[in-house]
Amino acid sequence: MAEPIAIRPTSETVMYPSYAKWVQSHRDLPIRLNQWCNVVRWEFKHPTPFLRTREFLWQEGHTAFHTAKEAETEVYQILDLYAQIYTDLLAIPVVKGRKSEKEKFAGGDFTTTVEAYVPVNGRSIQGATSHHLGQNFSKMFDISFEEPDKGGKAYAWQNSWGLSTRTIGAMIMIHGDDNGLVLPPRVAAIQMIVVPVGVTAQTSEEQRKMLICKAEEITDLLVSVGIRAESDLRDNYSPGWKFNHWELKGVPVRVEVGPRDVANNQVTCVIRLSGEKRAIPVSGLAEASKKMLNEIHERMYNKVLEVRDKHKKMCMEWREFKDLLDNKFILLVPFCGRIECEDAIKKDSAREESIEPGASAMGAKSLCIPLEQPTDPLPARCIHPECTAKPRFFTLFGRSY
Amino acid sequence: MAEPIAIRPTSETVMYPSYAKWVQSHRDLPIRLNQWCNVVRWEFKHPTPFLRTREFLWQEGHTAFHTAKEAETEVYQILDLYAQIYTDLLAIPVVKGRKSEKEKFAGGDFTTTVEAYVPVNGRSIQGATSHHLGQNFSKMFDISFEEPDKGGKAYAWQNSWGLSTRTIGAMIMIHGDDNGLVLPPRVAAIQMIVVPVGVTAQTSEEQRKMLICKAEEITDLLVSVGIRAESDLRDNYSPGWKFNHWELKGVPVRVEVGPRDVANNQVTCVIRLSGEKRAIPVSGLAEASKKMLNEIHERMYNKVLEVRDKHKKMCMEWREFKDLLDNKFILLVPFCGRIECEDAIKKDSAREESIEPGASAMGAKSLCIPLEQPTDPLPARCIHPECTAKPRFFTLFGRSY
Repeated sequence: MAEPIAIRPTSETVMYPSYAKWVQSHRDLPIRLNQWCNVVRWEFKHPTPFLRTREFLWQEGHTAFHTAKEAETEVYQILDLYAQIYTDLLAIPVVKGRKSEKEKFAGGDFTTTVEAYVPVNGRSIQGATSHHLGQNFSKMFDISFEEPDKGGKAYAWQNSWGLSTRTIGAMIMIHGDDNGLVLPPRVAAIQMIVVPVGVTAQTSEEQRKMLICKAEEITDLLVSVGIRAESDLRDNYSPGWKFNHWELKGVPVRVEVGPRDVANNQVTCVIRLSGEKRAIPVSGLAEASKKMLNEIHERMYNKVLEVRDKHKKMCMEWREFKDLLDNKFILLVPFCGRIECEDAIKKDSAREESIEPGASAMGAKSLCIPLEQPTDPLPARCIHPECTAKPRFFTLFGRSY
Repeated sequence: MAEPIAIRPTSETVMYPSYAKWVQSHRDLPIRLNQWCNVVRWEFKHPTPFLRTREFLWQEGHTAFHTAKEAETEVYQILDLYAQIYTDLLAIPVVKGRKSEKEKFAGGDFTTTVEAYVPVNGRSIQGATSHHLGQNFSKMFDISFEEPDKGGKAYAWQNSWGLSTRTIGAMIMIHGDDNGLVLPPRVAAIQMIVVPVGVTAQTSEEQRKMLICKAEEITDLLVSVGIRAESDLRDNYSPGWKFNHWELKGVPVRVEVGPRDVANNQVTCVIRLSGEKRAIPVSGLAEASKKMLNEIHERMYNKVLEVRDKHKKMCMEWREFKDLLDNKFILLVPFCGRIECEDAIKKDSAREESIEPGASAMGAKSLCIPLEQPTDPLPARCIHPECTAKPRFFTLFGRSY
C-alpha cells in the first residue's frame, strides 16, 4: 500500500479530537456515542475463533460528562446491562467486579467487568468491560470547558465500554455439548423446529400429505404466538438425518408430528438440552411452548451456575491454591492488589505442561475484585506466600482466556 | 507492524474458501449470509464524510444457489429491499437499474443499483448495489457439488449485495437545508420535540411548573401512541435557543406548549420541512401527529421527486448533452454499452474548471440502465457523436459521486 494506514485496536484517538471540538461549554455535556465497528488486535499467538481473534466486531461506547459522579454512575449502569445480556439472554451466570491494577485498561482510572466461567475446562472468560477513564483522555485531547460555578478550565469525565462477538464464542463454549450447539432459547434464531415423522414405505400419499399439512399447521400456531418456529418438510432427508441436523445446530426444541400424534391430537416435543420427550396436546401447545422455552432458559442458567459454584471457593492458603486451580476452580483470595504481587502469583501458579499434556498450564490471572465482597473478614496475609503487603480485598483468580 | 495484515475492500476472499468447504452437495444450498463490518477503500483523492470515506461500515450479503435462476431472482428481491429503504424510510426517490460494463462490479456477471439524485448540485449518488456474480467466484474458489440430475461437477451461482453508511450522507445531502438537517420522520431518533414556551420574567413559579407539567403530559401522550417524542425542559436555555438547536438537528416536528395553548387546550406544531405552524387540539393530537409524520414523509419524498424529474430528461443529441449536464440534469440517452464509448463520453463531457470555479466539472458517468425503459424506440445513433455502434438501450448518464 502506497499510503500509510492506521489500524486501531480501539477508537479513542479517532473520536476524541472531535469530542474536543464539540465540547465548548458544560452544556454540551453529556455526550454519549456508541458505534459498531471492527477492530484489530495483534498481541497474542493463538487465535481462537470468536473468543480471541485478530479482527472482531464490537460495539464501543464513548461518553463524556460534566462530573465524575455522573460518569461513575454510568459505568455501573452499563455493566448491569452487560450482565443482563449474559444472564437474561445467553443464560450464563457472571460475576460483576472491578479489574486489578494489572488487568485494568491502562488508559483508565478503573475497569469494571463481567466474568463468566467455562465448565468444560474451568477457565474464565471476560464477558464485557465498562471503563471509567477519569480525566486521562480529556486532558490528553483537551476535551474541556469553563467550569460554570467555580470558573476556570475543567476537563470532562469520560467512560468507554464495549462488548464484542466474543459473546457468541462464550455461548458456544459454555452451553455446547458433544452433539453440537445448545442455543439459549431467547437468542436462538429458530426456537422450535417442527419435523413430520413416521413416514415409511407403507405410508399412503394421502397420509403423507396430511402429516405435512399438520406440521405446517403446528408451525403457524407457534409463530402466531411469537415463537420463532420453522418446519423442516424436505422430503429428501430422513427424520433421523433431520434430528441430527437440528441437534447440531442447537435448536432448543424439536417438535415431532407423527401419525400417532395426529390421532391423539398431540405433538411430541424433544428438548435439546436434556433429550427429554414430552407429549403435549395441540390445544395447550402455544402456552406450554412459551413456558417450556422459559423453563429451558432457567435450566441452562442453573446448570452452568451449579457447576460454577461448585468450582468457586474461598482460599486463604497458597498450598491449596495451585491444586484447586488444576481442578478447574476459580478462587476468591485475599490480595494486596499490587502489580508485582499479581505477577508473582501468575508466575508461581503456572504448571509444568508435562504433568497433563494438553490441559491448560497457564498461571492464574486475577479475574476481578467482585463488587459483592464476602462478609468474612480479610485475613492478615495476602495469598502469595512471599507477599508482605496487607490484603485489601477478596479477589477472584483463575485461569482465563 | 511486524506481521503482514490484509485490509479488505470487500470480503469474497475471506468468506468463499469457507463456502467451498460448506458446499459438498446441492442440498447444502442455498447459503445466505450477511455481515456488518467495516471495510477500507483507498482509490480516491478527496474523501467526503459519509459519502466517500477511506473506511466505512456496511452490510455485505453473500449468497450461493444451485441454479442461475434462483440467484437472479434474489438479485432483484434485494434490489427492491434497498429501493424501499430509500423510498419508504429515507423519503428519497431512486431509479432502479443495471450498471454498464464499465461501471459494474468487475468480478460479477452484472450489477444492479439504485441511483438517487442530489438536488443541491445535480449530482447522482449510487445508493446500494446487488450483484449477480454468476459462477466467476465459485469456479475460482471451487464452490462445487455433484449435479443431482445430470451428474458431473457443478458450480454454485452466487450473488453479493451491500449497503453502507453512505445512506446517512445521502439523506443529509438530499434533505438538509441552510438551517441544518431535515430528518425523514421514519428514521428520526426524535420525531417530535416538545418545548415549553412563553415563560417570561413575569411568569409565576406556579405558571412555570404548570407549563413543564403540561409539556411532559404531551410528551407522554405522544410516546404512548408509539411516536418517538422527547421534551426539552432545560431551564438554562431560552425557547429561541432550543428552536435553533432542534432545527439544526432536523427534528421533524417541534411542539410548542405556551400559556395560551394550555388555556385553549391545544399545542402549536411547527414543521421543520416547511416552517409551517399548526394549532392542534390536545384531544386529537395523537392521531393528528401520526398523520402529520406520514404527511411530512410524503412531502419530503415528493419534493425531491419533483426536482429530480425536472432535471431528468431524454436526450438524443450530443450538443444538448453537455449543456443540460451543466444545468444539473441527468440524461436518458441512447447508448451502445461499450466501455470505450463510455470512456469517450466521460472525457468529452468534462468541463473546463475555469468556467464556473467550484462547480463540478467532472465528465458524465453512466448511472444505470433503468430496468424500466422508455417506450420510445431507440434512435439509430448512440449519443456519442463519434460512436458508430448501434445503441442497445436507454442509459441514464450524469455527474456522480
